[in-house]
Amino acid sequence: MTTDTTGTAARDGEPRRGGPADSAFVRACRREPGPHTPVWFMRQAGRSLPEYREIRANVGMLDSCRRPELVAEITLQPVRRHGVDAAILFSDIVVPVAAAGVDLDIVAGTGPVVAEPVRTREDVERIRPITRDDVSYVDEAVRMLVAELGDTPLIGFAGAPFTLASYLVEGGPSRTHAKTKALMYGQPELWHALCARLAEVTAAFLKVQVDAGVSAVQLFDSWAGALSEADYRRYVLPHSAAVLAGLADDFSGSRRGDGRAEPERSQGVPRIHFGVGTGELLGAMGEAGADVVGVDWRTPLDQATRRIGPDRAVQGNLDPCVLLAPWSVVETEVRRILEQGRAAPGHVFNLGHGVLPETDPDVLTRVVALVHEVSARPAD
Amino acid sequence: MTTDTTGTAARDGEPRRGGPADSAFVRACRREPGPHTPVWFMRQAGRSLPEYREIRANVGMLDSCRRPELVAEITLQPVRRHGVDAAILFSDIVVPVAAAGVDLDIVAGTGPVVAEPVRTREDVERIRPITRDDVSYVDEAVRMLVAELGDTPLIGFAGAPFTLASYLVEGGPSRTHAKTKALMYGQPELWHALCARLAEVTAAFLKVQVDAGVSAVQLFDSWAGALSEADYRRYVLPHSAAVLAGLADDFSGSRRGDGRAEPERSQGVPRIHFGVGTGELLGAMGEAGADVVGVDWRTPLDQATRRIGPDRAVQGNLDPCVLLAPWSVVETEVRRILEQGRAAPGHVFNLGHGVLPETDPDVLTRVVALVHEVSARPAD
Repeated sequence: MTTDTTGTAARDGEPRRGGPADSAFVRACRREPGPHTPVWFMRQAGRSLPEYREIRANVGMLDSCRRPELVAEITLQPVRRHGVDAAILFSDIVVPVAAAGVDLDIVAGTGPVVAEPVRTREDVERIRPITRDDVSYVDEAVRMLVAELGDTPLIGFAGAPFTLASYLVEGGPSRTHAKTKALMYGQPELWHALCARLAEVTAAFLKVQVDAGVSAVQLFDSWAGALSEADYRRYVLPHSAAVLAGLADDFSGSRRGDGRAEPERSQGVPRIHFGVGTGELLGAMGEAGADVVGVDWRTPLDQATRRIGPDRAVQGNLDPCVLLAPWSVVETEVRRILEQGRAAPGHVFNLGHGVLPETDPDVLTRVVALVHEVSARPAD
Repeated sequence: MTTDTTGTAARDGEPRRGGPADSAFVRACRREPGPHTPVWFMRQAGRSLPEYREIRANVGMLDSCRRPELVAEITLQPVRRHGVDAAILFSDIVVPVAAAGVDLDIVAGTGPVVAEPVRTREDVERIRPITRDDVSYVDEAVRMLVAELGDTPLIGFAGAPFTLASYLVEGGPSRTHAKTKALMYGQPELWHALCARLAEVTAAFLKVQVDAGVSAVQLFDSWAGALSEADYRRYVLPHSAAVLAGLADDFSGSRRGDGRAEPERSQGVPRIHFGVGTGELLGAMGEAGADVVGVDWRTPLDQATRRIGPDRAVQGNLDPCVLLAPWSVVETEVRRILEQGRAAPGHVFNLGHGVLPETDPDVLTRVVALVHEVSARPAD
């Protein structure tokens, strides 16, 4: 399934060449040159794949996230099928809050439904901090996957405080996030207490994954784009920053000298931060502590890079709807995105949001091949 | 209900001072100085008002749009209650396509539902051009309203081709607009034929309103923000431009000299163009032929003005969710927006999207008073 592109064996006292830390994906996250632009897809493990629909046929969503063998199998399916450059842990953003004691379910066709939406300080207090034991299934799944994936990196997965808070306050998905914003504006202390608690739970959830061996993490703030930059900076950024701060990978020093990857022993990993409709927030989301900022299709990657600055890589940004178009359209768009991505100091090719269920998986496979072909760089 | 703020009688051969064409609202649209920043609210006529819920209790949405007395009454309700600077014709964006023969209904809690979604050239051909007789109820309602409103301007209302096409292709509201974009990318000729037909219907619908006396029009491209700028320019802008081109108000020459309003006899009126999440599209939406570009709360008005350029006014941009917050928050935000709006050559205060049903109408009334108070300019 994976190949060691360097073939260099580890020597005593030196980091091993090859392995996930030396992969095209991790290199791009670290703004280091690599053999090609890496590519993976948000929701690559999911409803577009017949083998996923089959394995999920009689298993509820939350249940499927809590069974390590199932998590591992679902996570591996798109790696096998498409040859993507990274796997992402199959999970759901409400998994850690469910582990923290929030009574919720994921209803097919609707999304998360919370039995008692958060309204008071007592509701916040009932969200208890989590430990490894509360999500031991995630620890197990990650360890199984890391062993299985070899040189292919595994990305850890969590929802960010604002997006989690929206589900908890609204009681489910919302178009407007009106109750969430009303609480944010009207009871800022309660809001900050809620987000601080969610940040704590999220950081613990990601730490379990990092300790178990993921090579990077992605913090999904899917609905942050509902906010103005001023509100984002005031009500959200500090909490997302608290999550990401604890995971920092101290690799910046290693890029001096010859520019080659010399990963140091570190508790941290590259951090990707993603949201939809965040054109006005890209700079702020980077400042929250991202090594890689996810960009949706609304903002071209060269413009996004100007807003984010030269110190972070970008990830994106094919409109998932383009995958429903004829191949000639897909190809044109992929080439355009690769070209615009050259403006960034590192580019991880991805969609601008998750794979739509109606997507033909063969198109995803072709996109991976095309990205690799077009972006291939001669070995140095 | 309305007052003539100038008290100047018309003289032979000169435009009458006072009247809607000399209102604060129309002046702001034309980037001319006025007595204060004008304010109205998208969906001001609607579910936030108890008198609206009462009058709509046993009347379906489409039915209510087709009864001139009801349209007039609903349109007037927020003018009476809040003292807004403009009324907007109560209608729905699917009214003209229903008049054009498309079988649809507006389902409470869902939105428009189209019986047979558009898939083929034949489906497009079945959308027939409309005449005044097809929407005589709109003509009647506008004439009643113009007589009733006196000096308060009435804004005409229509949905733009992309947003209409999305409803027709999806068969109803959509989060992703996936079928719409698939048709757009995959069958561009069919797409352009559909949008050209919708532009024709929309232009006719707005022309009926202009002929009946509206003082301005707003073209709602609510979902255009789902598109990248490149796709917007390629697939949407030409059709929106076709709608707006026929309505242009030739007032640009009249601003030379002393800068005062000297409206010339014209078939046209100021044109407002609005969408949600259009931060990347603001310049292009202006180029489509807008005198005023609507901006949602994600983009501060001073930044929006830099993107739009000095030749157009802006409208916006209070987050409708802020109206659910304590008054101190509302006041701070209103003052900030008025301050940022000074960067624009004209500013119409509004929300960044429609009034939420759960909004306390008294807050809207207070916002109108605050906008007027803070923005009042001494008479010259």
